[in-house]
Amino acid sequence: MINKVGRDIPDEILERYGKEGYNGPDYRNGTYYVKAAPRVRSRMEGSGKILPSLQEALLKCGVRDGMVLSFHHHFRDGDYVVNLVMETVAALGIKDITICASSLGAAHDPVAKLIEEGVVTGIQSSGVRGKIGEAISGGRLKNPAVIRSHGGRVRAIEEGDVHIDIAFIGASTSDEYGNARGVGGKSNCGVLSYSMVDAKYADHVVVVTDCLVEYPNLPASISQVDVDYVVEVEAIGNPDKIVSNVVRMTNDVRELKMAEYCARVIAKAPFFKDGFSFQTGGGGAALAVNRMLRPYLEEKNIRMGFAIGGITQPMCELLEEGFVRRIVDAQCFDAASVKSVENDPGHFEISTSEYANPMNKGAYVNRLDYVVLGALEIDLDFNVNVVTGSDGVVRGAPGGHPDTSAGSNCSIIVAPLLRSRIPTVCDRVVTVTTPGECVDVLVTDYGIAVNPLRQDLLGAFREAGLPLKTIEELRDIAYSIVGEPEPLEFGERVVGIVESRDGTILDVIRQIKD
Amino acid sequence: MINKVGRDIPDEILERYGKEGYNGPDYRNGTYYVKAAPRVRSRMEGSGKILPSLQEALLKCGVRDGMVLSFHHHFRDGDYVVNLVMETVAALGIKDITICASSLGAAHDPVAKLIEEGVVTGIQSSGVRGKIGEAISGGRLKNPAVIRSHGGRVRAIEEGDVHIDIAFIGASTSDEYGNARGVGGKSNCGVLSYSMVDAKYADHVVVVTDCLVEYPNLPASISQVDVDYVVEVEAIGNPDKIVSNVVRMTNDVRELKMAEYCARVIAKAPFFKDGFSFQTGGGGAALAVNRMLRPYLEEKNIRMGFAIGGITQPMCELLEEGFVRRIVDAQCFDAASVKSVENDPGHFEISTSEYANPMNKGAYVNRLDYVVLGALEIDLDFNVNVVTGSDGVVRGAPGGHPDTSAGSNCSIIVAPLLRSRIPTVCDRVVTVTTPGECVDVLVTDYGIAVNPLRQDLLGAFREAGLPLKTIEELRDIAYSIVGEPEPLEFGERVVGIVESRDGTILDVIRQIKD
Repeated sequence: MINKVGRDIPDEILERYGKEGYNGPDYRNGTYYVKAAPRVRSRMEGSGKILPSLQEALLKCGVRDGMVLSFHHHFRDGDYVVNLVMETVAALGIKDITICASSLGAAHDPVAKLIEEGVVTGIQSSGVRGKIGEAISGGRLKNPAVIRSHGGRVRAIEEGDVHIDIAFIGASTSDEYGNARGVGGKSNCGVLSYSMVDAKYADHVVVVTDCLVEYPNLPASISQVDVDYVVEVEAIGNPDKIVSNVVRMTNDVRELKMAEYCARVIAKAPFFKDGFSFQTGGGGAALAVNRMLRPYLEEKNIRMGFAIGGITQPMCELLEEGFVRRIVDAQCFDAASVKSVENDPGHFEISTSEYANPMNKGAYVNRLDYVVLGALEIDLDFNVNVVTGSDGVVRGAPGGHPDTSAGSNCSIIVAPLLRSRIPTVCDRVVTVTTPGECVDVLVTDYGIAVNPLRQDLLGAFREAGLPLKTIEELRDIAYSIVGEPEPLEFGERVVGIVESRDGTILDVIRQIKD
Repeated sequence: MINKVGRDIPDEILERYGKEGYNGPDYRNGTYYVKAAPRVRSRMEGSGKILPSLQEALLKCGVRDGMVLSFHHHFRDGDYVVNLVMETVAALGIKDITICASSLGAAHDPVAKLIEEGVVTGIQSSGVRGKIGEAISGGRLKNPAVIRSHGGRVRAIEEGDVHIDIAFIGASTSDEYGNARGVGGKSNCGVLSYSMVDAKYADHVVVVTDCLVEYPNLPASISQVDVDYVVEVEAIGNPDKIVSNVVRMTNDVRELKMAEYCARVIAKAPFFKDGFSFQTGGGGAALAVNRMLRPYLEEKNIRMGFAIGGITQPMCELLEEGFVRRIVDAQCFDAASVKSVENDPGHFEISTSEYANPMNKGAYVNRLDYVVLGALEIDLDFNVNVVTGSDGVVRGAPGGHPDTSAGSNCSIIVAPLLRSRIPTVCDRVVTVTTPGECVDVLVTDYGIAVNPLRQDLLGAFREAGLPLKTIEELRDIAYSIVGEPEPLEFGERVVGIVESRDGTILDVIRQIKD
């Protein structure tokens, strides 16, 4: 079938997974469903959760072929837990494991070998980078990878689309009864938002920590009532690598120019009033926007109601200085935000379900005025691709992109028109990861395009004298400089499924041609 | 069948409710079950939860005959919400409602009339006092009342023994999207622990508040993701009445004597070491124990690891002064504790599932060293009755009594040997609400009895020179003063079922004879 973003979703895929094609952002709004529930084991003893090794934990949880194991990625490129657990799984001779992670990155390159060996046959993740992405696009993973947004992942768990057999939760601190936090130890990651949902819906829950602390470890991100076992290891991650090159400050003139355009877009849109809400990602231009907003806030004498998302130092500084009333945090992107969530009384941890699940009774993204996001590609329908690279290989992550785009009053894509002679604006993106009807504004270094669905914004920006272009004009400029790109050629085999946040199918990813 | 506390549970009751008789405190420890799950409606709009009236909320939630409505009792005798909602239900002509409350008291006398009218045909509660108790014992409620401990209630909800159609949550503050707290408004009750479970397992959730605050209301006890509607009313409760006569300080010489005995019992038991954990109830002697413990703490130079439970001013003072490391709070019993939980960084709110559910992966009561509790009656097997009065009428509440007795290393009952010429110690309690095998020590004004199952304690107390008696000796003293009481006569009809915390049946309550 051809879905609402014009993508041909093979019927066999829809049938195999019992799914529908994407049918618009509000298709499932206001509908009823019964939530999923785990099968759990009661514990009336006040001790006995500490186990000497991950192997012991896997055996106690009854690990067996075909299980689904879950992980969080709060340590990003510094995570050790996935590899520690998966090595142990492999050593036990277990096969056919599905890894359901909130994201996977370069830290998890060793998993590619486990894919070759059939230890891992399924990947469900937001991000897939590095060698895992190559293994997927090369057709070496047995089952199609399932790519979900952050909101889509927790939706899938809460609706029972995926049932987690064992959740492994790397925790900066834990007590011996499983109360776990993202702060207080030698390896701090700030919040444990992604794992909060896993802890509630997995049959078995194992906390993995490198810092056991006195009972009770409060306030607990993960509660003892959901934890079966606690395993102490030497190190759960390297917090220095939470700041990967995805999250960086910029001195790049082009990025600063886009940031300035973006700040003007925000200030001139009708939502720029006291109490507005805001999210930026961790890209260079996006981060710069945080700082460039300040004079506009001062000029208008207003402040943000809340900032949300992946949180970085510039936003924590705005909080400290009173420009933001609350930070609502689902992921810390740097050391400053880790410190802030531990110490600043205006900075709060939330679960990823609270952040972005489209099927609960109201996520934070529903209340968002502005979001600033990136794109690898964006096409004439404003469809965005943040997952497949220009060679067709999986190397990105939708993350909260589709969730915040759908939820916000004004979603802004900031991207250079060209990257290494590859146009960002194009006729048709390789893979649709955020539907164009949810994308409102595109800011490039060559001008600003507004989605024609948003005549309100177009009017406001025209009046404010912003450098407006149509998206076709931007595409034409790009093509005039570097030429129209050759279409990629793919094999027939579906190696990845891009789920919309509501569980319908947005697009499929096919095997690359060798 | 005759259950493990020697009570004859009618087979028809066991069959009707698909239950087993009580079979020991650890009968279901380590067993597996699938958790319950609600049927919920998604909301992708960022607004629209505010409704103008309770009637509108009831209609939007599809109220109809036979539904189960739930309530918390954090306002105790000052609660307005049950009556406000139930009046509205009655006015809509709805019948056959089951009220599933964490407790009901004198504030809810108007419900007795709704029982007569068939609006209310089921009561599931920990406490039942006042006119509702009379209506139950008089046989006027259509279905047997189900009496559960606090842990047993949340267990029943989480296991699906009771499915809540609509949860009403009186909240001291809420924002328009349903983030609700027990502090910050004009009617503060401190924590919303009882409602935390209802919010997760009810199909529909309505927050009722008398103080709407700016979004987002954080840290939220009840999260927006679980709330369908918010209704503002003039007042949700009278916080002055949180301190009812159940919670009081004492000058009574007899109570002070028992408190002193109790403090010595605690100090001489082997668990009195640095980091021990502790709970007292709100009775006169129990409260006095908090203060009498201090010299023993000072003498031994130790402090409590955590105090839990219903929290009162004396415990908050011990926290402030450094004698307690953490307070873990499932209910505030007075204004001082409400203030403390809002402001003291060592004082934490937990859910009632975290407090006491025997079927989750580990509740706080499992980690308890000492608990100090009351009793209306205690018999030669140490079985305790805290529900039926000397006239056989329901007028009490197990509350956390059975949970903490089962979980703690040393459970201590403090009760005068006689009350108005009625013996507390007796051959056989009218109703078993806490099994004797979970009760370790009885402190009376005539001496201290230790359960023979606890030879370890008996040895320690004998060595310490405590005034020990056997429970038979205490019974003999009581009977020698006031005579042996005449056995109560009951009708045949079962009007109440006392569930053990694990869902098995501990006892039944029969209709009183007119």
